Amino acid sequence: MTSRFEPQDPDFERRVRDSFDCQRVMETLGARLTKVRPGEVDIELPFRHDLTQQHGFIHAGIVATIADSACGYAAFTLMPPDAAVLSVEFKVNLLSPARGELVIARGRVRKSGRTVSVCECDVFAQTAGADKLVATMVGTMMTAHDRPDLSG
Amino acid sequence: MTSRFEPQDPDFERRVRDSFDCQRVMETLGARLTKVRPGEVDIELPFRHDLTQQHGFIHAGIVATIADSACGYAAFTLMPPDAAVLSVEFKVNLLSPARGELVIARGRVRKSGRTVSVCECDVFAQTAGADKLVATMVGTMMTAHDRPDLSG
Amino acid sequence: MTSRFEPQDPDFERRVRDSFDCQRVMETLGARLTKVRPGEVDIELPFRHDLTQQHGFIHAGIVATIADSACGYAAFTLMPPDAAVLSVEFKVNLLSPARGELVIARGRVRKSGRTVSVCECDVFAQTAGADKLVATMVGTMMTAHDRPDLSG
Amino acid sequence: MTSRFEPQDPDFERRVRDSFDCQRVMETLGARLTKVRPGEVDIELPFRHDLTQQHGFIHAGIVATIADSACGYAAFTLMPPDAAVLSVEFKVNLLSPARGELVIARGRVRKSGRTVSVCECDVFAQTAGADKLVATMVGTMMTAHDRPDLSG
Repeated sequence: MTSRFEPQDPDFERRVRDSFDCQRVMETLGARLTKVRPGEVDIELPFRHDLTQQHGFIHAGIVATIADSACGYAAFTLMPPDAAVLSVEFKVNLLSPARGELVIARGRVRKSGRTVSVCECDVFAQTAGADKLVATMVGTMMTAHDRPDLSG
Repeated sequence: MTSRFEPQDPDFERRVRDSFDCQRVMETLGARLTKVRPGEVDIELPFRHDLTQQHGFIHAGIVATIADSACGYAAFTLMPPDAAVLSVEFKVNLLSPARGELVIARGRVRKSGRTVSVCECDVFAQTAGADKLVATMVGTMMTAHDRPDLSG
Repeated sequence: MTSRFEPQDPDFERRVRDSFDCQRVMETLGARLTKVRPGEVDIELPFRHDLTQQHGFIHAGIVATIADSACGYAAFTLMPPDAAVLSVEFKVNLLSPARGELVIARGRVRKSGRTVSVCECDVFAQTAGADKLVATMVGTMMTAHDRPDLSG
Repeated sequence: MTSRFEPQDPDFERRVRDSFDCQRVMETLGARLTKVRPGEVDIELPFRHDLTQQHGFIHAGIVATIADSACGYAAFTLMPPDAAVLSVEFKVNLLSPARGELVIARGRVRKSGRTVSVCECDVFAQTAGADKLVATMVGTMMTAHDRPDLSG
């Protein structure tokens, strides 16, 4: 496996998985962390009727929730061990209704900076094994140092 | 009470409240529709630990969820009775951690167009009666006509 | 040459080039339309000191200008002959200073819809033949029909 | 005159005006810095045919250029004397065609942080003394310290 990015912390995967387990909203939504590689994180969300908007699709904000975490953790894979990650901003374009069996957010780092990283995330809805692009996010993630109020 | 906007449908409030009741995710999150006026919708979300990210704040995506609905329904107040509303895109800037007792999203229409409307939403966290700005969204909402697959 | 997109108008390239020639700002900036393919448009801007911000880099707004046109014309390649294209919104993330000999904006359609299309554009700065990613845009473009005030 | 923001540098206005004078693109476009107050900067651009897109309106990217500078300098008014300002990202929603005699960008700080500030900018087109909202921007501006390559 090769990667464009070299993690500063060899133990990045455990750090990401531990932090994800602390995002209580992920358990509430039923989201799972699947892929964790340098600069790349995938999060999956099985379809649930109790997460829908008025037309029966997964609410755009819930799509944004897993996409934001996928972006944040993609950036987090490349941060030093003592840093915390914070979302500065993100934008989502909604391309198609999020319906099907599974929603998959694929977060990728575009630029990893000392203070600020830029990530993008394509979100797909999977139906009978076929993926359809439903949303795309670009977001800015910040590396927070020396913030004892923020762990992980 | 005066408003900059004249609704096309005098029954706009009932239409918004009925549609909100169909957003099953709102019940799942515990969000409530409070204010509904022409071009203005407020949604409130009491703090819940099971909606938090890894530092104990309400996850930015959950903040975006109520802000997106506040924007969408603010636009919806001004749409004709047979139209449906769809989010085209939104961007959120996160200004402060969303913590406290209550998160309040105040969606407002900036421009109401025939096909496309632009809305903004300031999101506040309330602690002991004091409001702090935690996020701001600008989003594009689309009026969908003749879409039998989309009701409300 | 294959393409994911099938243009509705076989004469799309002439239509794009004619419209670009009507964007007087492109001549003012010295920008050139290079590649025009279905769903893909490249615009190049040779470095000029009179387009810089205070640190001597090409101003982010000028980067956005060629990126917005690259996105708009990428969408325009797929529109019917009588349509006009309008920018609804765009967001730019600035990744590195835009310096070097040439700035290249590569606009690509992500989704082509009847009314609304979503495009992305990576912008590179070229120095001694090497390209560096300096900015990335995602934008929403609208197909305008029956608008006699908008030609091309 | 009262302001919500207290500048760290009493000489902020001179610092902003000096930096603006170094933005060579502003002279190229014919833009003028008008208002400079703590957290507030206005930039005006008289209409010019050589800055238009294909329908004869000021190009959205040129609108973004003055809006980005208005945001950046609004943030810069509140920065310490030795800091430089950089745009991290911005998003523009285009509400109406930018035509008329004058385009006015009113940049305002929403949040001033140590590293990152969030600004918004409403852009108006003025015709016969009447202002019409044509665009709205929200952007993230960064305070750069110890960057000898960036002056002002």
